[in-house]
Amino acid sequence: MPAIQDLYASEFAHCYGCGARNSQGHQLKSYLRGGETEAVFTPDAKYSGGVPDHVYGGMVASLMDCHGTASAAGFAASEQGQALEPGMDLPRFVTASLKVDFKAPTPLGTPLTVKGRLRSISGRKVWVDLSLLAEDQICATGEMLAIQLKTP
Amino acid sequence: MPAIQDLYASEFAHCYGCGARNSQGHQLKSYLRGGETEAVFTPDAKYSGGVPDHVYGGMVASLMDCHGTASAAGFAASEQGQALEPGMDLPRFVTASLKVDFKAPTPLGTPLTVKGRLRSISGRKVWVDLSLLAEDQICATGEMLAIQLKTP
Repeated sequence: MPAIQDLYASEFAHCYGCGARNSQGHQLKSYLRGGETEAVFTPDAKYSGGVPDHVYGGMVASLMDCHGTASAAGFAASEQGQALEPGMDLPRFVTASLKVDFKAPTPLGTPLTVKGRLRSISGRKVWVDLSLLAEDQICATGEMLAIQLKTP
Repeated sequence: MPAIQDLYASEFAHCYGCGARNSQGHQLKSYLRGGETEAVFTPDAKYSGGVPDHVYGGMVASLMDCHGTASAAGFAASEQGQALEPGMDLPRFVTASLKVDFKAPTPLGTPLTVKGRLRSISGRKVWVDLSLLAEDQICATGEMLAIQLKTP
């Protein structure tokens, strides 16, 4: 199954966090599996927080933001009975609101897993519940309202 | 007047977003002036969102996160009657919760101003209201609960 971000139309694929067309960016890849979404990312050591062995808060928020909008796109397609297939152009969602609760320091040097669950959909609006884990430890939880971009 | 981040103790000054000791990071500088805080930052073109002319959401959240914790440190000192002076070690605050509402696309190629206002203080907890502007346009608003780190 393709990554959700690899199904964004090319004009919307420049995001520093997750755009396939941004060669300088993180190129986060989110996958829809079994009704939930997941992405894995290992931040480089330079992305430390105030102390060197933890990830800075902006990275945690960034991973949630990119994974959240991808999750919204995946869930919206799934609700409409669309399978995610290579070559399709998935509608692009943008963040209206993102709340992140930092539960524990996020360690550096270990893969981080970001998970998304659909809370609800109403028209172009999708609410997503998020979590970020290091191994089995929940480091942060989040909630997002994402809105589908209107395209001509 | 010194930047708030330049008053963090050296062991807490490694943040990628704003740490004076992270030479690879953004080194955001926040200033307390007239009871409010302000930081200005111009993201490089690589930090685009889905479309190339806008800033990616993670950058907006990151700027708010670093500026918010700096604001909390500045406001807490101010409430205790402490002036911000070179050479002091300011207590370090970390984010417990950050909510960002994206009001309009944030343009690339122009300085962004992040502002902070004190909402309230209770013990080690500081609530900060945030906004991010491009020229006079409010692109995002935010609210943060920051907590002062316990130090030995």
